[in-house]
Amino acid sequence: SPSLRTGVLVSTWKMKGFDIADMLVFLQNVGAVHFFCNYEESRGNYLVDADGNRMLDLYTQISSIPIGYNHPALLKVLSKPHNLSTFVNRPALGILPPENFPERLMETLVSVAPRGMSRVQTMACGSCSNENAFKSMFIWYKNKERGHNQPSQEEINSCMLNQGPGCPDLSILSFMGSFHGRTMGCLATTHSKSIHKLDVPSFDWPIAPFPKLRYPLEEFVRENSQEEARCLEEVEDLIVKWRQKGKTVAGIVTEPIQSEGGDNHASPDFFKKLRNIARKHGCAFHVDEVQTGCGPTGKFWAHEHWGLDDPADIVSFSKKMLTGGYFHKDEFMADKPYRIFNTWMGDPSKNIFLTEVLNVIKTERLLEEVSRSGKALLQGLYELQAQYPHLLSAARGVGTFCAINARDDATRDRLILKVRNKGIILGGCGEKSIRFRPALVFKEYHVHLFLNIFNDVLAEH
Amino acid sequence: SPSLRTGVLVSTWKMKGFDIADMLVFLQNVGAVHFFCNYEESRGNYLVDADGNRMLDLYTQISSIPIGYNHPALLKVLSKPHNLSTFVNRPALGILPPENFPERLMETLVSVAPRGMSRVQTMACGSCSNENAFKSMFIWYKNKERGHNQPSQEEINSCMLNQGPGCPDLSILSFMGSFHGRTMGCLATTHSKSIHKLDVPSFDWPIAPFPKLRYPLEEFVRENSQEEARCLEEVEDLIVKWRQKGKTVAGIVTEPIQSEGGDNHASPDFFKKLRNIARKHGCAFHVDEVQTGCGPTGKFWAHEHWGLDDPADIVSFSKKMLTGGYFHKDEFMADKPYRIFNTWMGDPSKNIFLTEVLNVIKTERLLEEVSRSGKALLQGLYELQAQYPHLLSAARGVGTFCAINARDDATRDRLILKVRNKGIILGGCGEKSIRFRPALVFKEYHVHLFLNIFNDVLAEH
Ligand code: FES
Repeated sequence: SPSLRTGVLVSTWKMKGFDIADMLVFLQNVGAVHFFCNYEESRGNYLVDADGNRMLDLYTQISSIPIGYNHPALLKVLSKPHNLSTFVNRPALGILPPENFPERLMETLVSVAPRGMSRVQTMACGSCSNENAFKSMFIWYKNKERGHNQPSQEEINSCMLNQGPGCPDLSILSFMGSFHGRTMGCLATTHSKSIHKLDVPSFDWPIAPFPKLRYPLEEFVRENSQEEARCLEEVEDLIVKWRQKGKTVAGIVTEPIQSEGGDNHASPDFFKKLRNIARKHGCAFHVDEVQTGCGPTGKFWAHEHWGLDDPADIVSFSKKMLTGGYFHKDEFMADKPYRIFNTWMGDPSKNIFLTEVLNVIKTERLLEEVSRSGKALLQGLYELQAQYPHLLSAARGVGTFCAINARDDATRDRLILKVRNKGIILGGCGEKSIRFRPALVFKEYHVHLFLNIFNDVLAEH
Repeated sequence: SPSLRTGVLVSTWKMKGFDIADMLVFLQNVGAVHFFCNYEESRGNYLVDADGNRMLDLYTQISSIPIGYNHPALLKVLSKPHNLSTFVNRPALGILPPENFPERLMETLVSVAPRGMSRVQTMACGSCSNENAFKSMFIWYKNKERGHNQPSQEEINSCMLNQGPGCPDLSILSFMGSFHGRTMGCLATTHSKSIHKLDVPSFDWPIAPFPKLRYPLEEFVRENSQEEARCLEEVEDLIVKWRQKGKTVAGIVTEPIQSEGGDNHASPDFFKKLRNIARKHGCAFHVDEVQTGCGPTGKFWAHEHWGLDDPADIVSFSKKMLTGGYFHKDEFMADKPYRIFNTWMGDPSKNIFLTEVLNVIKTERLLEEVSRSGKALLQGLYELQAQYPHLLSAARGVGTFCAINARDDATRDRLILKVRNKGIILGGCGEKSIRFRPALVFKEYHVHLFLNIFNDVLAEH
């Protein structure tokens, strides 16, 4: 019976001699679990596993730890009595915000707002950030289309039945290789791996090719710019085609660097032209900075590297930002309450930590640190790929947001495993890439620690 | 420029004489904001606003505060040094769980698992819980259909393009008046208010009528059972119709009590028959306990009131449970890793609080308390509707999960406002209902405090 049996089960399990891994196997598919961690003992760039092994972490919980483990500034938050009620009482932010919430927003999110973005909506994770960003674009598009008049009775009635005109056949254009989340709206714009999408119904939305560039970018400028031109042409074709199909593109979404899909880069020129295409066709332009945002490229937002004249319309974030959410231009604010809404609308306890994270980034000049470490890392990767051309290629990156390709996926997986056995945690992405996602406190000497070990592993291989 | 301007903006705003409300207006659509709160000063059943007014809270952050504000057991969590790292280092649970995570799951979620549910997947909110529950049902359905063989190459390729057969045309059957969340998959099963759905593309999924019963249920048994039979017949018709359309129903989702849609009840007999229809047609049966779960009906899960022979396949939760997630039967576990996955997969810091919440529910016998208070509340509502039949009707409820209808929406809104001015917070739902969603620590004397004030307001009206 579903009564409250707290405590009984665990002791039964332990009596039967099961260990913690067995318990989890019983409860969930654990095929993705790498190992169990001791977060209490972890510090800075070092993650400690359940057996006490201390490892230099270049993957940082899928790029979601901003300033390392157990940063004293974050621990201090919990020692201040006036912060505690924020952890204990999670409010419904959309209806009953804490009195310090607007000030907290100003001090944190607004203080790092991308240029041209005056508004910010908090959410709780990357998926709800992107889902609501998409909804904002649809709402914006339809309001524009109906001249900001009230919706018709037909629209109001039909939407309750999931039907048009109230639920319109609008679409979001995304890129092959992109990752924007796994809830069903996001998943319709995600095209990283088939296992992410298989068996889940989706929307007939247009998918453009993302440039397949040759690295280092500086050496293949002409070829790469031709490839980018080809993709941009395809984007315009798809916009026209989908309009003709009656599934008009309301918005274009892109990552500044395709992350899960294999660390695929494109040039600032590509993104500027993409932004212009969006404007030309009346589509919103949404930059998904869930993985790239909060400093790992050496600028706070990766899209700052582009130097856009006309800012993006929407920039979404999560991961290192600890809270999810999205910035947007004025005209993307919902015209009525409860259109962009849910119970929690974020979590103010994450904003408290974000205050400290931003302070540390500023006072410890971590963006400069990232640029410095990133330069050393990329330089080291260039040297290794020159030394082991049969194993490595296509080193690439901005800041510490770097990647390198292995010969094939089996080699990639073996290299990651061997490096882990020598105390360094790396992550994979795409088909055969190794990605580097250290925290912002990753320093030059950590780079050299890693490069030495990686060199040893490659030499042995 | 998007540099780190922390601290500058707030002082500028303050110098210009803006107050906190102005700041938020500048940042967001604040049309839904009721007032600002002082959560530090709030205690138990009492919420304190920014001006220091202390109000008896019968709405509790849209039913998401389980044991009242600033419960000492929850504050104590933060005074224990070994808990702190869980707050400071949010892990990627799906790949690097903390060593105590399986044990924590056993002590919390597994200890309250609904009958027949051996597995539990944590998530972060109601929407990702339901989105992933839907995905589990789609994956289960397709695996069953392909005889648990490997997917074809055509399926693998087509899903990357959002096309069939890899992204199949399956559907989820939901009920008119239901609310299952606002991300795009959830939203396709949500039919509460048009403002929730307008302008957002959706899926052509079947929507059955939910029984419109007459209250009190005991007095209209025959009429109500006819109405339920009508709806069940429609459910079967829709399943057949959508199969013929090529959009086979993979799962049926229902709330035990439709909450946002107006506190619409149905009998245990209705749900038993619905469960049988699901089995008969090979559809999964998903009970969404996001709002009803964790005790407010006097049982831990509202669907325990039904006495199902064959348990549900999936039960999702969030809100009072503090963490999101869903329980499911063995056969709904994904066959491969990374199919049900995201960066965080929940938040272990919420599980720590849940441990304490479950302890308090048990040691303070709060489910009994809820039954007792609920009985007094419903009795009081019956008496008031008898006394003010021109204003109130259809009092209904289980435990403290009660509601009553006002004459019309304007009356409802006025009554809620007047009651608030006398120090009591209520919520609305549906077209003209007032809903009661106190915490589990709501006692009989709070019921009488409320009833007296409500009586005064009704008498004045
Ligand atoms: S969808 Fe973002 S927290 Fe649930």
